[in-house]
Amino acid sequence: MQRLKCRVEYDGTVYAGYQVQTNGVTIQEKIEKALTKMHKGESVKVIASGRTDAGVHAIGQVIHFDTSLNIPASNWKRALGPMLPEDIRVAEVEPVTDDFHARYDTTAKEYRYYVWNDHEPNLFRRLYTYHIRKPLDVAAMREACKLVEGEHNFTSFCSPRTDLKGSKVRTITKAVIEQRGSELVFIFKGNGFLYNMVRILVGTILEVGFGDRTSDELETMLAARDRKAAGKTAPPHGLFLWKVEY
Amino acid sequence: MQRLKCRVEYDGTVYAGYQVQTNGVTIQEKIEKALTKMHKGESVKVIASGRTDAGVHAIGQVIHFDTSLNIPASNWKRALGPMLPEDIRVAEVEPVTDDFHARYDTTAKEYRYYVWNDHEPNLFRRLYTYHIRKPLDVAAMREACKLVEGEHNFTSFCSPRTDLKGSKVRTITKAVIEQRGSELVFIFKGNGFLYNMVRILVGTILEVGFGDRTSDELETMLAARDRKAAGKTAPPHGLFLWKVEY
Repeated sequence: MQRLKCRVEYDGTVYAGYQVQTNGVTIQEKIEKALTKMHKGESVKVIASGRTDAGVHAIGQVIHFDTSLNIPASNWKRALGPMLPEDIRVAEVEPVTDDFHARYDTTAKEYRYYVWNDHEPNLFRRLYTYHIRKPLDVAAMREACKLVEGEHNFTSFCSPRTDLKGSKVRTITKAVIEQRGSELVFIFKGNGFLYNMVRILVGTILEVGFGDRTSDELETMLAARDRKAAGKTAPPHGLFLWKVEY
Repeated sequence: MQRLKCRVEYDGTVYAGYQVQTNGVTIQEKIEKALTKMHKGESVKVIASGRTDAGVHAIGQVIHFDTSLNIPASNWKRALGPMLPEDIRVAEVEPVTDDFHARYDTTAKEYRYYVWNDHEPNLFRRLYTYHIRKPLDVAAMREACKLVEGEHNFTSFCSPRTDLKGSKVRTITKAVIEQRGSELVFIFKGNGFLYNMVRILVGTILEVGFGDRTSDELETMLAARDRKAAGKTAPPHGLFLWKVEY
């Protein structure tokens, strides 16, 4: 058996999220189906760095699986391509030792959230950006980002639907906003993220951008350790799982 | 009755082209349905600057229609928005005199064709760019573009399925290629375009880019006045009707 680590890209638009579930088609399902086909019906289990919600995209999702096939790593990409739908792509394949684990071994993750901030919508970016017509105060949002950086208990920025029993303390090493014309890119890097954490952070920081909250309030919200203290959850289609580090 | 001129944007991915036909849903159909709804069932006929093929997109399609409704032009955009699907947008509405005609009054059109030229595909541009893995000789393609500019008989670059009886002489005022990283943008501006003309031009110029033909051959092809003399028709999804002038 050989363990393979893969970087996977997907357009989450039509999927019910990454992880296999009963309602709707998932990305994991499509990848496992393709692998099972390649293994002539022998079922292959795939482990990912983490799940992504319905509608969320990925550039840098990482998965691992074990294979009995004797295919060089360099040929896997080409072999898997035609087995997968157009909106899922195995972008890199690399042999790893048997003790590599895509979920448990992560040391850092980066998410990016795209906002199209213009009075006019952008039809051709509609599936990959959250359209906000009202002008945003980017300087105030950057102040808010600064307060998010560092080690905090992020209970206020975690969906109550989480099944996490452990600590909600996480360290955010980078929280910045890049501006490219009408496009704003929120970049969050950290040692781990809670359920819906990036979307709640973005939704809350956008409320600062609208002037509905001040950037200082981020501190109070963190201290509250209560989801109700934070802002709305931004919609999924602006979010990309950008990079996973090991 | 008031005549209105509109700029329309659409993502052609799921449509059977612009013009109403028997197979598949068209963009014209969606716009006429929205207008008929606004006119409480009274059917509204829409005239466009020209049709676009299945899968072709538009940023600058222009249409006109006559309305009995007493709505200020500035409110039409907002009124039509919710009546149209997410992939069709009326971007500008302007009152015009009764003698304005979206098709007959055009003086120039601009088309853009997007190529993603990289060994790796771009998943998030897959619906809007033609992916070409092999490296392209951009300098040679630019030479070919130069030979396309000017007044020519474009019979070799017209689909034989055209129903045009008149002259196939057209003037191309601009044929250039812009390079933005891995993205190549072919820009064609002229006083008129024949059926599939831009896609055949792009397909042929790409053959020059591959080194399968020399740029000089464009002259021989134009002189042949025979579709078989030119290259392949590039696929529709890279093509945008960019601007129509009056």
